[in-house]
Amino acid sequence: MSTTTTLRSLNIDNINPHVKEAKYAVRGELAVRSEEYRAKLAKGSTDLPFDKIISANIGNPQQLDQKPITFFRQVLSLIEYPPLLEKEDVLLNQLGYKSDVIARAKWLLKAVGSVGAYSASAGAPALKESVAKFIEERDGHPADPKDIYLSAGASSGVNTLLHIICATPHTGVLVPIPQYPLYTASLSVLNARCVPYYLDEAKSWGTDLEAIKEAHKKAIAEGTDVRAIVIINPGNPTGASLSEDDVKAVIDFAAQEKLVVMADEVYQTNVFKGKFHSFKSVLRNLQKEDPEKYKYVELASLHSVSKGMVGECGHRGGYFELCGFDPAVQEQIYKFVSISLCAPVIGQCLVELMVNPPKEGEPSYELYKQEFDGIFAGLEKRATALYEAFKDMEGVECGVPQGSMYLFPTITLSDKAVEAAKKEGRSPDEFYAFRLLDATGVCVVPGAGFGQKENTLHFRTTFLAPGTEWVGRIRKFHSDFMDEFR
Amino acid sequence: MSTTTTLRSLNIDNINPHVKEAKYAVRGELAVRSEEYRAKLAKGSTDLPFDKIISANIGNPQQLDQKPITFFRQVLSLIEYPPLLEKEDVLLNQLGYKSDVIARAKWLLKAVGSVGAYSASAGAPALKESVAKFIEERDGHPADPKDIYLSAGASSGVNTLLHIICATPHTGVLVPIPQYPLYTASLSVLNARCVPYYLDEAKSWGTDLEAIKEAHKKAIAEGTDVRAIVIINPGNPTGASLSEDDVKAVIDFAAQEKLVVMADEVYQTNVFKGKFHSFKSVLRNLQKEDPEKYKYVELASLHSVSKGMVGECGHRGGYFELCGFDPAVQEQIYKFVSISLCAPVIGQCLVELMVNPPKEGEPSYELYKQEFDGIFAGLEKRATALYEAFKDMEGVECGVPQGSMYLFPTITLSDKAVEAAKKEGRSPDEFYAFRLLDATGVCVVPGAGFGQKENTLHFRTTFLAPGTEWVGRIRKFHSDFMDEFR
Ligand SMILES: Cc1ncc(COP(=O)(O)O)c(C=O)c1O
Ligand SMILES: Cc1ncc(COP(=O)(O)O)c(C=O)c1O
Repeated sequence: MSTTTTLRSLNIDNINPHVKEAKYAVRGELAVRSEEYRAKLAKGSTDLPFDKIISANIGNPQQLDQKPITFFRQVLSLIEYPPLLEKEDVLLNQLGYKSDVIARAKWLLKAVGSVGAYSASAGAPALKESVAKFIEERDGHPADPKDIYLSAGASSGVNTLLHIICATPHTGVLVPIPQYPLYTASLSVLNARCVPYYLDEAKSWGTDLEAIKEAHKKAIAEGTDVRAIVIINPGNPTGASLSEDDVKAVIDFAAQEKLVVMADEVYQTNVFKGKFHSFKSVLRNLQKEDPEKYKYVELASLHSVSKGMVGECGHRGGYFELCGFDPAVQEQIYKFVSISLCAPVIGQCLVELMVNPPKEGEPSYELYKQEFDGIFAGLEKRATALYEAFKDMEGVECGVPQGSMYLFPTITLSDKAVEAAKKEGRSPDEFYAFRLLDATGVCVVPGAGFGQKENTLHFRTTFLAPGTEWVGRIRKFHSDFMDEFR
Repeated sequence: MSTTTTLRSLNIDNINPHVKEAKYAVRGELAVRSEEYRAKLAKGSTDLPFDKIISANIGNPQQLDQKPITFFRQVLSLIEYPPLLEKEDVLLNQLGYKSDVIARAKWLLKAVGSVGAYSASAGAPALKESVAKFIEERDGHPADPKDIYLSAGASSGVNTLLHIICATPHTGVLVPIPQYPLYTASLSVLNARCVPYYLDEAKSWGTDLEAIKEAHKKAIAEGTDVRAIVIINPGNPTGASLSEDDVKAVIDFAAQEKLVVMADEVYQTNVFKGKFHSFKSVLRNLQKEDPEKYKYVELASLHSVSKGMVGECGHRGGYFELCGFDPAVQEQIYKFVSISLCAPVIGQCLVELMVNPPKEGEPSYELYKQEFDGIFAGLEKRATALYEAFKDMEGVECGVPQGSMYLFPTITLSDKAVEAAKKEGRSPDEFYAFRLLDATGVCVVPGAGFGQKENTLHFRTTFLAPGTEWVGRIRKFHSDFMDEFR
């Protein structure tokens, strides 16, 4: 300890230990180094072996190639500056705004008053009604606006739910491994227990009911009070898209063991293979079949404007829907979200636009459809190109892209490479990822950041970056790396 | 307990007890009832004795009369839909945008890329530079962008700081009473101790160093590890604006007792009487006088776009600046904010606009100045009108308006009223506030929601609502109430 630290109130040894324990690799040391390189390049530095940084570490579409959907942004421009609505003629004839853009902006302004005013704590009522309608149409089952909570991205929704669930240091939550590290980090901060269950790489990273059961049993034997299970579907970092049977199996298990199901469905439109099955729809179907058995299943399902073809990460919009929760518990959730007042109102409006986009026959529909389909096709194309490249690489294995925005290949490194990593005090996959960044400017996240089975190594890369030149750079680096440590 | 609760994972008896303990009256039962009345009125109901709801319970300017500043919103409209920038001619000649609006929008877009992309965890670097420049100009002392953290409103900044500080159930934070309940609520959730110190109503609600010392001493005697002191300046709910000497006294005490100073300065431009003295400037001045003594004082000062003449609550923008923090602690703060990715990027841009508004001689300056001054004058006028009304009311005492957006009068109620309150299971000030709402549609917050000395009663009302008709309604209600319980 340095002498100065004792002169202060706060030092690394006396701050909240649970914050210290939290790990969040997606924006960790590698990401920080990549930002340093980016700043260097921006200042005209030429002593790096690359001329741009590819941030493949984070699912941040608009930082890379993805353009915002025109309809959404036109509406947002009007609700930010409502006096534009007095110039309808200019909007329509000179700026190319369509009449449905204007109508939606007016409707949203009526719903929220001003986007500069705090809304109700759980979101503006009219916007929650739109979300409920969307869920009803998606699932074919009713949804109630009072069970919908608009949040500052799904991150904030997860934070709220875990705050309610984590009652004691013995409380445990089943979390898939590998996982998006928001879950483990939040559980650390809350001083609760992460109960890891491994996804089955051999079955395209699907859920493995036996693995879940075993993890649950083991946790209980260790005195953990397991209260919830997290499912990320489609998966991050895996991209896996669950079958209806897998979803059923999880709900069944949750019903039996009285676990809250937290269904993180932020990638619900990022599905290339198969079909998205929402937990809500599967639950309601099960409840029809066997009302007694499934009556009290508690489901919280989360969505976000950050992913999909919307890709509006910076706006921090999202929602969660609760099913089967005790009203007294819902009251506490409401109070908890009140403490931070409300989610960003522009983000709330974007949620409404996402769930209620232009419909066939409406003036903005054609462009919307074209943009949406274009983004989808672009993602699939880049995913495939990256997958093809990985397939060819020595010591790399990768499943076919199924969904979300990521590939999560396995890498097999030589003993010599493992040894070299150890010398630097890094895990082999971290070592590999740092080498990749230093050589190519491509920033990925080592598998350790998401969790992986012992003696396996992976990295996660997004397939958001435009072009294929960067894929070539990875390929060359990899072959050099394998040669160096042969 | 109902039989159904045991069938679920979560019930009111087994969720996080610390969330349950948290109290947040600003959006509590009264606010909920007022929203029910509002909904009833909107549906055309005529069986209420009033025809509109006045939400005087919350400092939410744009929900009431306050118009957004034109320059800010014009810029935001352009960064939401950048293709507008290709129609400069239309913007300038038909929509009345000035050239500095366009230039600022271009600059902001360069700084953030797309407002739909996640920014760096603590905010976009160029925007943090603007904030640093603002602080330098305000205080006449340097500020470093690396010590600035953009946040989703000041609420999120407070949440971050308390997360770091609250290390154990014995950790204590000195909190002024009365206070904005974000502090007590967050400390409850974090299972840490609120160490209340009373503000001095007799001295216009200024800080009372003796009261602080006593509270601190008492807490230590009880085994509390006191680590920080919160100051709200100008005050909420009190409106008090601290003198330079009061600020010095607090810093002095913090230096002596090694406490982090958390200076909540969100109302820094809402000052009618006296002058705002930032903790940062006073600290730096003290450090010049006596470097040894003040060298390690840790200060976190918070600001927001929600208040002042900006009033952009719904955008959830804010920042905090750290002085004197240990770099290793700052690293943990950075990691903590990373977990929720970043503050809303539009809110970040609004912070930049707030701290860097049009300057004299620039095309948008005149209108900006006119709007800013108009809002300021309007607030002062309404504050004075409300104060005059309170002065006349039997059993009501109220200090002259000094700043922020609130008045916090003392009320003296008869024993009969206190008795009637008891029968309803409410504190007398709650009872009064419910009666006020039921009779007039005016929603205020009882003093109990902020804390008050034993045997004193208060309520807090904003002076944001337009007109004076509602003040008349309060006056009539009050006189009827006093008669009823005479
Ligand atoms: C699985 C998953 N859940 C939640 C989030 C959080 O997203 P946001 O808070 O932007 O909605 C992410 C972001 O990458 C994610 O991948
Ligand atoms: C003293 C004080 N601090 C912080 C806040 C939080 O404001 P925001 O999160 O909107 O910036 C408020 C809001 O009323 C306040 O009064």
